[in-house]
Order: sequence, then structure tokens, then C-alpha cells
Amino acid sequence: MADAYIAGAAMTRFGSRPDSLADLMAEAARGALTSAGLERPEALVVSAMNPEEFVGEGNFASHVATHVGLARTPSLRAETATSSGAAALFTAFAMVSAGVYRSVLVVGGEKMTHLPTPRVSELIGRSIDPYERSYGATMPALAGLVTRAWMARTGATLRDVSLVAVKNHANGAKNPLAHFREPVTLETVMESRMVADPLRLFHCCPISDGAAAVVVGAEPGPVRIAGIGQGSDYLALRYRDSFTGFRASQEAARTAFRMAGFGPERVEVAELHDAFAPFELMSMEDVGLAPAGKAARMLAHGETALDGRLPVNPSGGLKARGHPLGGTALAQVVELYWQLTGQAAGRQVEARVGLAQSIGGLATTNWVTLLERIP
Amino acid sequence: MADAYIAGAAMTRFGSRPDSLADLMAEAARGALTSAGLERPEALVVSAMNPEEFVGEGNFASHVATHVGLARTPSLRAETATSSGAAALFTAFAMVSAGVYRSVLVVGGEKMTHLPTPRVSELIGRSIDPYERSYGATMPALAGLVTRAWMARTGATLRDVSLVAVKNHANGAKNPLAHFREPVTLETVMESRMVADPLRLFHCCPISDGAAAVVVGAEPGPVRIAGIGQGSDYLALRYRDSFTGFRASQEAARTAFRMAGFGPERVEVAELHDAFAPFELMSMEDVGLAPAGKAARMLAHGETALDGRLPVNPSGGLKARGHPLGGTALAQVVELYWQLTGQAAGRQVEARVGLAQSIGGLATTNWVTLLERIP
Repeated sequence: MADAYIAGAAMTRFGSRPDSLADLMAEAARGALTSAGLERPEALVVSAMNPEEFVGEGNFASHVATHVGLARTPSLRAETATSSGAAALFTAFAMVSAGVYRSVLVVGGEKMTHLPTPRVSELIGRSIDPYERSYGATMPALAGLVTRAWMARTGATLRDVSLVAVKNHANGAKNPLAHFREPVTLETVMESRMVADPLRLFHCCPISDGAAAVVVGAEPGPVRIAGIGQGSDYLALRYRDSFTGFRASQEAARTAFRMAGFGPERVEVAELHDAFAPFELMSMEDVGLAPAGKAARMLAHGETALDGRLPVNPSGGLKARGHPLGGTALAQVVELYWQLTGQAAGRQVEARVGLAQSIGGLATTNWVTLLERIP
Repeated sequence: MADAYIAGAAMTRFGSRPDSLADLMAEAARGALTSAGLERPEALVVSAMNPEEFVGEGNFASHVATHVGLARTPSLRAETATSSGAAALFTAFAMVSAGVYRSVLVVGGEKMTHLPTPRVSELIGRSIDPYERSYGATMPALAGLVTRAWMARTGATLRDVSLVAVKNHANGAKNPLAHFREPVTLETVMESRMVADPLRLFHCCPISDGAAAVVVGAEPGPVRIAGIGQGSDYLALRYRDSFTGFRASQEAARTAFRMAGFGPERVEVAELHDAFAPFELMSMEDVGLAPAGKAARMLAHGETALDGRLPVNPSGGLKARGHPLGGTALAQVVELYWQLTGQAAGRQVEARVGLAQSIGGLATTNWVTLLERIP
């Protein structure tokens, strides 16, 4: 397997944006090409979860390619629901590693804020098993059930879970591209309105618009894709072995670490999929950054804060940076690229190895990517 | 670039099917695994153009993986509109060639016949440039314009174009899995009702349900993916250099032949994207199987018939086998696999090298795949 590198990265500001999705994708794409010092990649991989229904456009890879000014560059779309950006990165990695292309622009995003929230919820709910969906299950409802089970197993409290939101909003306040740039207090989080017990509004990520892009190249430096792996599980929750951890994250991490040839102990910064605040803690345990049941304590002790031993979601995470579905996993990689190359002004941490973890659907199709700064 | 092989292939009967899309995908997938003698692939790549709107399902790779009985096998979806099956094949090729996986199941399909035709037309029309779409352009309308331009340039007549349908229906009559299994006369084709001048009903492929699947493996034989390439062009017809050939097909062919290290002269059987009958002739010229302007004469002389020098669309093509969007490009590869390995009873041709060409949207994202039987 030949090495592949992140040669450049960029993202738009996340939030409620008047721009079209194609404009957001183009902004991120041009930024990543500039960052990589590349005029024209050999191919494009595009990620968006559902451009047909969110913005009414199909043939979306061609649509984006044309809009970016690369109509005559081969392009395809990769999709794994809310983790689509990671699927696109993996596809580009395989292309470059196989030697099919020497440079691939990967760009992902979503435009959602123009739709009413119930419609967004319906579209995201398509990721759920049809039978469970037929009983009214929504993504927050299932996440609430999983959170209750995880709290019961680990002894974590609602206060522990709420501290994730406090930390990530504090980080987001330092990220000029974040959707939310205001710190929040523990009280605000714990007293916000109920969404799906025990999850309250401030435990849930916002609906965001935005896009992110990276260039994957065969030429060495500055950041290597040391490992990348996917894990999966049954669509239906009722078939899962466990509700207190996600097999798909665990398997993705095993695969990525196996490819990298090192373990979690080398990871110094992480971007985790906190679409719901407790998922950050569950994910720390799933990918091996915390022993089982210990993530809440690490957070409470400040170990995952910006100035902690292992900063988690320095960008603000999905919670504060925002979650434009097809762009999110790439935004994680953009943040790690900036952190590893000293470009995260205002929230810079010291790290050589970073981990990004992305959850697709209710953890049916998850990814872990390991990035390493070239010495 | 390490070699990759087609280790097995299968497809469902195409046509109007009462089965769910997931059932069709599972039938093709299990068939391909059986054909390859493989119990469990290392990964899945799924193709469907728009499962969200055709069948109301998202997170579709996980949905199919669960339905096939491979919920814990990594899966992702690849999409390039009507050529999505080829994008999925290419993605699997890159994965195997990179050494990321040693066996990948590729399965694609679409379920369309349950929707009213105007709705199908609307969904397919999403592939067209939004500005041209806003003036009422539909896929058959634009195809009609291109056909008129191509006829004017080459001197081909409507009779020439109609002979494509006659040949492909004759072939489809010999294919037990084809949507249409009745031969048609030249008169029937030429006198069928007008769809978009000069295209009449029998110049257009049907709306079909169905799925097709192949296993791509790293282990040698029986059929090698000798070359695979993508070409692209502007979404908008008004920006194209030419209306009498598709740049995306030409570029895809150049790339595939470059990878294969041989030229069109070695191709002995071809499956071409005849969504509209004249596209078979244009495609022969685009991919180098006919000199410019000579495809119609080759057809009229019987050279592309089942017993001709270069059989084209022995399966019946999109015209008679049918066109379940995300499954079509894989069905082409299935047909070539069967032809190259002597499993095309009733329509068997003698060939060692086959070419499949697939058109995405109105030729914005096309693919050419070259398959070669291992001696």
C-alpha cells in the first residue's frame, strides 16, 4: 500500500449561510487547492449525504466539478450518510495509494438551514432501520436510548455529559469558522429544553450549512494519512450486541491502527463525532483513547480540554463548529491538518499525531482516520 | 498499480419487478458471491443513483449490507448518476489495487417502475444543468438535439438509428434476464410514437427495476480488469465543444486503453450505453470502435450483430435488457464476464477482450472498462 498525504486543506465558515451548496463546495475546494499549491487535481471525490432532497440537485459530482471550474476533471461522489466525508477521503486514499491518480481533491458539504427542522429530521431519519423508523424512532430518540444505557453502565451523570458541550462551546468560541462562537455555562446546558430524554437542546449539534475540502496527494508531506479504516454494524439497533458502545467505531479504530502500525497511545489530539454530546465520551472509549467507563472522568479532570493531555474537539466539534453532514468528517481532517501544521491560531495544541472519528447514521458506518505530521 | 480481477458476477432479471430494491440488490449480490465461490467479501461498494427519492431509503450502503447479510462488512456508496455502477466498480478496483482489501463485492441497482413516468423523468432530469433545466430541458429532449446534430454531421438517417433498436431487441430476445424479450421490426421502431424529435418511443430505453453485482478480487482470474477510466465534461450542453460526440466517453476510453496498454483493435465484444438508440452509434465512434461517421455503416452491414465481427450489446443493451440506473453499468460488466467465460448461452460470442461504456447524466461523467479473459 503506497503512502498518501494531505497536501492542503480548507473549509468555509459553518453556520446558517445564504450561499448555495455548490458555492460553499467551491469556496472550500478552491481554498484547499490554494493551500496545497495545486492548480488542477487529477480527480475529484465529492461527498454530500443527500443533495437531491436538501437542495434539489442530482448528478452532484459533475455539478460540483463544473462549479469549481474543474468540469473536465473526473469526479465521483462517495456516500455513507453522516460520515460521507470520511468515505470520500478513503476513496481518494485508495485511488492515490493504488497509483491511479497522483492528486485528488476531496470536497464535502451540506446545505440544510433553509429547510424546516421537521423536514431535516425526516431526511436524516432515513438512515434509521425502516422497521424501527415505522415506530416513530428519530435520530435523537435512538441516541437518547443509547445514552441512557451508556450512563447506566458507566455511572456517568448528566453533568458529565453536559461538560462535553461546555468544553466544545469554549473551543468553538476560539474557532472563527465555527457555527457557535459563544461559551455556554453548565447551567445553560443542563437547563436547556428537553429533546429526547436525557438529551437536551445543548447536548445536540445544530443544523448547519458549510463545506470542507482537502487535497490527497502521492507526493510526501506535510501530513501523512497513517491509517484509515471503516467499521460497520446492523442498521437496526435491536440486532446490535451492545448499546453502550458502537461496534462500528471500535472496528474502524482497529483497522486504522493496524494500518498505521501504532496504537492509541501515540494520539495527541482528536476530533470525535459529538453529534450528541455523550457520543464524544462513548467514542473516546470506542476508539481506545479512554479505558472503558473512564472517559467522563478524563473530561471532568480537564484532560481533553484545549490545554489538557489529549485535547478532544479543539475545533468545537459537531456541537459548536457545526454539522453540515457531508462536510463534517472532512472538517475534522481540516482541523487536524491545521493543528498538526501549526495553523490553528487561537486554539493551537502541540501534536504530531491526530485521530478523526466519524459516525454514519446511528453508527452503522463509521470511520477512523489517523494523521501524522511528517518530521 | 496491482492487478484486479472479476471473480464472479450475477444479475437479476430486469423489468417491472414487485420486489423491493434491497431484495433485488441482495439477489444479485448473493449470486455474485456464489459465482465467485466466496462466502464473505472484505468490503462492499453499493451503487444506486437516487434511492432516497426512488424508494425512500437513505444510508443506503448500510441498508444493502444489512439486507445482504453482511451488516458487519464495511460498505460505501459510489454515485455518478446513471453511470454509478461503473463508479462503484472503479472504487472497488482502486481499493483492491491499493491492497486495502483483497475482495470487494460491488452491487448496484434501481427500483423505478412503481413511480409515475413524469416523476421518473423529473428525478432523472436532476442530472441536467439547472439553467437548461429551467427552460424545460429533459433528458430525451437534449438527447434529441444531440442526435439531430450527429445525424447532420455523419449523414446517418433515422433508419440507421432505428436499426440499433432492431438489433438490440433481437439480442434481448435471446437473454432470459432482459426486460424486453420480443424482436421488433424496423417499421415498429420507425412508426412508434414521437418522444423528442427525432427520437421515438422505440429509440428510448425503458424504465426498469433490477440489480447486478460483481466480485472484484486480488487473486488472479478468470477475467482481468485490464483498464478502467473516467471522462467528464461540462454539466451544461451549451459549454460543450461538440454536440456530435461526447468528450466524456472519448476521455474515458483514452484513459482505459492507456491503462490496458492496448488499443480498440483488440476489443471483440462491447456493451455500450444505448439509453437512446443513436448513442450506441455515437459511442462506437467516441470509444474508437468505429472511425468517425462510420458506425451506422458498420451496423447496417451487420458487423455489430451477434454473429458479426464486433458484436455490440449482445445482452440487448439498455434498449432491451433495460436500464435500472445504478445497476446498468454493472450489468454491462456481468454480460462481458459471461461472454468472456462462455456462460452466455443462446447469445454466446467468441471474444477474449470486452469493452463496457457507461454514460452518466447527459454524458457529464462517463466510464470505459476493459475486461480481458485470463489465458
